[in-house]
Amino acid sequence: MKNRITTLFNIRYPIIQAGMIWCSGWELASAVSNAGGLGLIGAGSMQPEVLQQHIRKCKAATDKPFGVNVPLLYFQTDEVIEILVNEKVPVVFTSAGNPAKYTAYLKSKGIKVVHVIANLKFALKAVEAGVDAIVAEGFEAGGHNGIEETTTMTLIPMIREMVHIPLIAAGGIASGEQMLAAFALGADGVQIGSLFASSIESSAHLAFNQAIVEAGDGSTSLMLKKVVPVRLLKNPFFTKVQKAEQSGATVDELKELLGKGRAKKGMFEGDLVEGELEIGQAASIIHEMKPVQEIFNTLISGYLKARRNQLPEFD
Amino acid sequence: MKNRITTLFNIRYPIIQAGMIWCSGWELASAVSNAGGLGLIGAGSMQPEVLQQHIRKCKAATDKPFGVNVPLLYFQTDEVIEILVNEKVPVVFTSAGNPAKYTAYLKSKGIKVVHVIANLKFALKAVEAGVDAIVAEGFEAGGHNGIEETTTMTLIPMIREMVHIPLIAAGGIASGEQMLAAFALGADGVQIGSLFASSIESSAHLAFNQAIVEAGDGSTSLMLKKVVPVRLLKNPFFTKVQKAEQSGATVDELKELLGKGRAKKGMFEGDLVEGELEIGQAASIIHEMKPVQEIFNTLISGYLKARRNQLPEFD
Repeated sequence: MKNRITTLFNIRYPIIQAGMIWCSGWELASAVSNAGGLGLIGAGSMQPEVLQQHIRKCKAATDKPFGVNVPLLYFQTDEVIEILVNEKVPVVFTSAGNPAKYTAYLKSKGIKVVHVIANLKFALKAVEAGVDAIVAEGFEAGGHNGIEETTTMTLIPMIREMVHIPLIAAGGIASGEQMLAAFALGADGVQIGSLFASSIESSAHLAFNQAIVEAGDGSTSLMLKKVVPVRLLKNPFFTKVQKAEQSGATVDELKELLGKGRAKKGMFEGDLVEGELEIGQAASIIHEMKPVQEIFNTLISGYLKARRNQLPEFD
Repeated sequence: MKNRITTLFNIRYPIIQAGMIWCSGWELASAVSNAGGLGLIGAGSMQPEVLQQHIRKCKAATDKPFGVNVPLLYFQTDEVIEILVNEKVPVVFTSAGNPAKYTAYLKSKGIKVVHVIANLKFALKAVEAGVDAIVAEGFEAGGHNGIEETTTMTLIPMIREMVHIPLIAAGGIASGEQMLAAFALGADGVQIGSLFASSIESSAHLAFNQAIVEAGDGSTSLMLKKVVPVRLLKNPFFTKVQKAEQSGATVDELKELLGKGRAKKGMFEGDLVEGELEIGQAASIIHEMKPVQEIFNTLISGYLKARRNQLPEFD
């Protein structure tokens, strides 16, 4: 099977693992690439020298293409970009910032560039910046999110209508059925976060893995809309933020409450009480921690079964 | 083409028109039924005697099955239910209330009963009450909405996993591609609101039709979460509500601001400044007012085209 995404990245399946802070180091990224998808190292939670080590370990663990996700809202992005160029990382995903900043430079070095957006305005900006593909991420996705709150079901057709470069759907995808739905909506590939965050190879703390597997209907909510919208798993820290927001806390008060290192504390150190736990709505259909290869097998067989059985033909 | 939904309602296509206040009278419902779907009269904005007239006119305008949607949060539901039974309405959709209240009674009169839910808890309650099918409505839907904010992409597989009776997906469906996605997710049928609200046969005021057609990315938002969550088109009235909410208005203050007759003023009388305009995110991909028959043609041809071309086969 070949399509625009498998051809662009030279991979077997049009399945990309989201570059998530505290979950996606070299072990997860290389496992995904070895299984035939595109693994991404999440640079957002790494100091530049740590990132460099992860890239080198990833190269040692796979001879398949992989990438790095760089959230442009963090510091040291110039330094990070230089590392990616020097290490000849084949693919870079940028997010949470201006796609015009590094796209031309990275492409001049032979690197494929993809930008993550959550609305039409930024999709058009990314196309103008010359990216090779776009990730359109719906409201149901975990972590940082758009202010328009447009869901995957609406976002993908809306972007597809106006954007003709390869399009990757993200948000709410954790099964073969949801993957099939993303293609039906007009996507050329899918980006999957929560499901890989829950995997054996995820660098998340086991307590966080467990919390993902136990999450159900209504277990997450989009919070901190005044600061930067982020979808969180409901826990005691979440409740504190919610109370502060409901009583009209200012941006500064919310930032004070958030403090430093909350995400690390929650997702990497496993503090389910005081930590910030970023996860998507799709956690509600994840019931088991699995190795990446098994996740791929389930995704592909679920996709094929749904494609065969669930789509009525009309006369 | 036959599936569980076409068989249940004895219709040609598994496409149900949402019973919307101020938009779906007998003209819309009969047009949808004549086109091969299931048209619903929206009882929520009708006095009992007005509803009775609409049912009679609908019967005169079509010999196909049709239904009535009854939001259980309104008054006079006992009286409304008696009219449905006396008029031998073939299908009743109930929403916004307890499915146990009327299901057994309606079924004892030979009426098919469907209940609308937005979370797993109420889906299971509806099954227990003995309904014939469930509508699962995602966060992107217009009008009243669930507090969990679960999107269609996540909600349908989550409900499908636990519920084995026929399942109808709602929220974010306004094209053949989105319809195909809903089937991929595990739905047996779709319920479509915004697209039919924008149709020629809709009883919405022309100014509201026009506003739907002009809506784009980020044009709607889920508001009034403290009272009852409702997705609204952004207009000056919306801004008033938003400001009140951001400054911490109480439930009573919000109810006072809402007042009486806001929805009628907006959707039926066309006051785009002071009226409440209920519409879904899918409005962003609706660009033209069309007659119902043309909407059906476009839905079916879009579905078949997407089914043929957009779903890669994997090896």
